[in-house]
Amino acid sequence: MPADVSPSYLFVPDLGPPGTGLALSGSESHYLARVCRARVGDVATATDGRGAAAVLRLTSVGVTVRAEVESIDREERSRRAWMWCGAPEGARADWLVEKLAELGVEVWQPLNCERGEWALGSDRRGRWERLAIAALRQSRGRFLMELREPVELSMAVTRTPAEAGRWVASEQGRKGLAPPGGGLSIGVVGPAAGFAPGEQKTLEAAGFEPIRLADGRLRSETAALAWALWWSLG
Amino acid sequence: MPADVSPSYLFVPDLGPPGTGLALSGSESHYLARVCRARVGDVATATDGRGAAAVLRLTSVGVTVRAEVESIDREERSRRAWMWCGAPEGARADWLVEKLAELGVEVWQPLNCERGEWALGSDRRGRWERLAIAALRQSRGRFLMELREPVELSMAVTRTPAEAGRWVASEQGRKGLAPPGGGLSIGVVGPAAGFAPGEQKTLEAAGFEPIRLADGRLRSETAALAWALWWSLG
Repeated sequence: MPADVSPSYLFVPDLGPPGTGLALSGSESHYLARVCRARVGDVATATDGRGAAAVLRLTSVGVTVRAEVESIDREERSRRAWMWCGAPEGARADWLVEKLAELGVEVWQPLNCERGEWALGSDRRGRWERLAIAALRQSRGRFLMELREPVELSMAVTRTPAEAGRWVASEQGRKGLAPPGGGLSIGVVGPAAGFAPGEQKTLEAAGFEPIRLADGRLRSETAALAWALWWSLG
Repeated sequence: MPADVSPSYLFVPDLGPPGTGLALSGSESHYLARVCRARVGDVATATDGRGAAAVLRLTSVGVTVRAEVESIDREERSRRAWMWCGAPEGARADWLVEKLAELGVEVWQPLNCERGEWALGSDRRGRWERLAIAALRQSRGRFLMELREPVELSMAVTRTPAEAGRWVASEQGRKGLAPPGGGLSIGVVGPAAGFAPGEQKTLEAAGFEPIRLADGRLRSETAALAWALWWSLG
């Protein structure tokens, strides 16, 4: 009897309507054939990272696994979070990217600030992509986190969508704020050395509300995760 | 003029009343002399990790820095959190220990479960201690997180203080619960493979309330941090 090879959950960027034939990527093929020991006729679940989840029926199993889309449905995001984050110390951003992706954050936006610039090698970008995809699969989510290139704070503020709710993590902020409901929410965290006074004014003028997320001082990456978790409680 | 060598914040397990003379540890001495370039007569702040914060006046600066307690005050914890946590995959517990310490969790209790046992080398214990101390200093906290040895879930439950509020992270739990106010709160997270049915019954019978902390599935270490952050919002 053909089996459902769940808990397999695949990332397949290009799905398609029922009946579409797919050749899965090397990593997804390896996972199905070697880790799950899937067979022809088994079914697996896949997302395209843009809101679709599909049931796939495997049509051949080998170095490349082939499958056919049996059914597919699509969701829109009802709640959206963007994280703008100054550079933390060392390589602490890697796990942050993983955790934000796991929590369903829509956009990861590194911020270059007066007191801290991102130093991103091309290898880091690739590593973040792999971490985001692994987190999507792990959490069985439907939306792959979008990884943006670093920008200056002032540039990010200029591009803020008008409808976005906005918060900045701060020790001087208010505690006990209720998490936002639907729509777009932006959380901002400074670099390890903090925002410069001019940057604080820029954020204030743009309506970012200071929020205090814990009693002690938090490292940048902890504050970023704290904001995302606060958002995820809504 | 003697300077305040803040942002230095030291961990000195044995402080004492004003007038007490102290010989600081190698790491604290190195930090003051080499990183902060402190001089005789400078002041620094120190905690004993058990609620005290003291102002120290440096009396000699060298390989060993000596200081005198100028003033000291002590606080009690008004809110206390214990984290019981099954083993996550790989070495993911290291950063979790760091983050929980940063958030002011009182007790870190690894849980051995049917579907996951902790494999702790003596080096890991030492590393956790260093991470907890670094997080205490970073967050300028007053309480060093207590690191307990792994126990079975049933043993941990037997030892639960009667007055403790209690929650277990679960995808099937309730969302939108208000964080606890004062007193002792215990958060429980299963190992990567989840709790066995018998363990779930044990927790239920002991009054642990299932709480859902995010919309997707969370890895063990993310769920543990999510619970601690939820607690820290109270």
